[in-house]
Amino acid sequence: MCEQEAKQLFSAMVSELNKAEQIALCGHVMPDGDCLGAMLALGLALRQMGKKVVFYSPDPVPELYAFLPCADEIHVELEQQCQFDLFVSVDCSVPDRLGHFQVLLGRAGRVAVLDHHTGSVPFGNTYLNLPVCAATGEIVYDLLRWLPVLVDEDIATCLYVAIVTDTGSFSYDNTGSLTHLRAAELLKLGVKAAWINKRLYEEKPLVSLQVLSTVLQSLELSGCGRVAWMFMQRDTLHRLNATDEHVDGLVNYPRLIKGVELALFFREIEDGKYKVSLRSKYYLDVNKLATLFGGGGHPRAAGCVMEGNLEDVKHQLLQAALPFLKDE
Amino acid sequence: MCEQEAKQLFSAMVSELNKAEQIALCGHVMPDGDCLGAMLALGLALRQMGKKVVFYSPDPVPELYAFLPCADEIHVELEQQCQFDLFVSVDCSVPDRLGHFQVLLGRAGRVAVLDHHTGSVPFGNTYLNLPVCAATGEIVYDLLRWLPVLVDEDIATCLYVAIVTDTGSFSYDNTGSLTHLRAAELLKLGVKAAWINKRLYEEKPLVSLQVLSTVLQSLELSGCGRVAWMFMQRDTLHRLNATDEHVDGLVNYPRLIKGVELALFFREIEDGKYKVSLRSKYYLDVNKLATLFGGGGHPRAAGCVMEGNLEDVKHQLLQAALPFLKDE
Repeated sequence: MCEQEAKQLFSAMVSELNKAEQIALCGHVMPDGDCLGAMLALGLALRQMGKKVVFYSPDPVPELYAFLPCADEIHVELEQQCQFDLFVSVDCSVPDRLGHFQVLLGRAGRVAVLDHHTGSVPFGNTYLNLPVCAATGEIVYDLLRWLPVLVDEDIATCLYVAIVTDTGSFSYDNTGSLTHLRAAELLKLGVKAAWINKRLYEEKPLVSLQVLSTVLQSLELSGCGRVAWMFMQRDTLHRLNATDEHVDGLVNYPRLIKGVELALFFREIEDGKYKVSLRSKYYLDVNKLATLFGGGGHPRAAGCVMEGNLEDVKHQLLQAALPFLKDE
Repeated sequence: MCEQEAKQLFSAMVSELNKAEQIALCGHVMPDGDCLGAMLALGLALRQMGKKVVFYSPDPVPELYAFLPCADEIHVELEQQCQFDLFVSVDCSVPDRLGHFQVLLGRAGRVAVLDHHTGSVPFGNTYLNLPVCAATGEIVYDLLRWLPVLVDEDIATCLYVAIVTDTGSFSYDNTGSLTHLRAAELLKLGVKAAWINKRLYEEKPLVSLQVLSTVLQSLELSGCGRVAWMFMQRDTLHRLNATDEHVDGLVNYPRLIKGVELALFFREIEDGKYKVSLRSKYYLDVNKLATLFGGGGHPRAAGCVMEGNLEDVKHQLLQAALPFLKDE
């Protein structure tokens, strides 16, 4: 893309932001690093321009991201007296995913959308959705070039967190050459990347490792070696005094095994009812597989809920998975 | 550094490589991704220039790196009839770490050293050691700019593996702005980064996870929450049919815990004898701590061997660690 085309791409958003004086920024439910990082970076930049900025998140900021500059200024509840002439939906292009802040869409003078997720229907006055970007933080990074803003260390830190979390530390296939170029620039601006990575990935609650230890004991591998699974009974969380957040990501462990294409995690949520997380490594479309059981998701990460005892549920899923596995 | 200075920095090495016709490349004992990636990238480039290249490694190539282009051409044994006029020590500037290939230093017409490790004494005819680089792969990347070589996908893949492994996926504090710039260029050259990351980090032997599961059950946290440890008894490996390589990196798990600065892993190697791995997160100098028990290493990763029963050994280490921990 040439300079002229890039400027064109951002012009409507730039003009929308320039015009507004009081701006509300809001991310999606269950905010992640990209959502929060992109929102805070944009807000800090707009404040530099003299705008009045309010941050909203329909769900509380996970403690993991509390170190982000101004994370403590993010409102979870709506203040009735709050006034603004522009509402920006950040990392979110599905109104439902704004949670209870969806009501603000009707109350705002103007609405802008800034996102990189696919599959949404455009809404608002200005809609900029670039799925080619690995993170909304990448879009904000580019956007700031066209605003009268100095990208300081705080803004750069927010953008780095957005990018590093949504690319799996530059390992997912959404990571492009431009992703690394942007990271290079952010490091030059003073981002303490090593410290941030420790904050993000080496500050887990003890109970997370206790849950991991317990669940790993259930790890099994199919005869063919291409499917691996683990399970967790309902009382485990209670016994360990753990909550849902400590279970996040456990399904990635069976995927780590050599030769495994399909990883499954069965979690009992009620008597005879299992929430199943499905992950694949190179080729298997777990979205299609989960659809067979009324679930869905993405090609490499999906989920469904199944009823029956553990052995039946497992057997059903493994049988259904067989046609999806390539002969090797 | 300006272009002229950069050219100057590499000029002796460039001239050494240009002059030679038959070149032996050799890495260090227990080769890692940087050692192998840098060596293979340089060798492939030299072959493009019409040179005859032989690859040596004092220890076998770990299966993890078998996917590297030409990894199967790396010799572990010395062929007596082998002739060469230049020997290049890659990622290694301590002759001892060339293992049994150290003898080649005396048999080569010329010797060159290409490395990024600190603390060595220069040897050979041309010595290029740049500790400012995160990986020897970064030095080879820069070096290739001054050689009549087209960096193809194979060479780029080797360089990417060198860089991604020695920077902990761009997370360690050796990762600089230039590291990301080089990665950006390598991705542009066709490196399949996502696939490589899966090969490197998601193809573990099942037994590694079984060892992890067993050892995690021993996880404990000190009263102050700043020290965490795990241990492994001698029969565990035998019982799980595991080997040393399956234990690598386990000490990183206690370090993942929030608030933990010092992580310890006690591994029984003989009756009443423990090999202790020490890791720290932000500030504690584990090299100094390990030195108190006759060991050593780096400020964030060190080791020592201690005698006694597990409780005594643990108590001694924890007592010694106290003065190293900051009051919080």
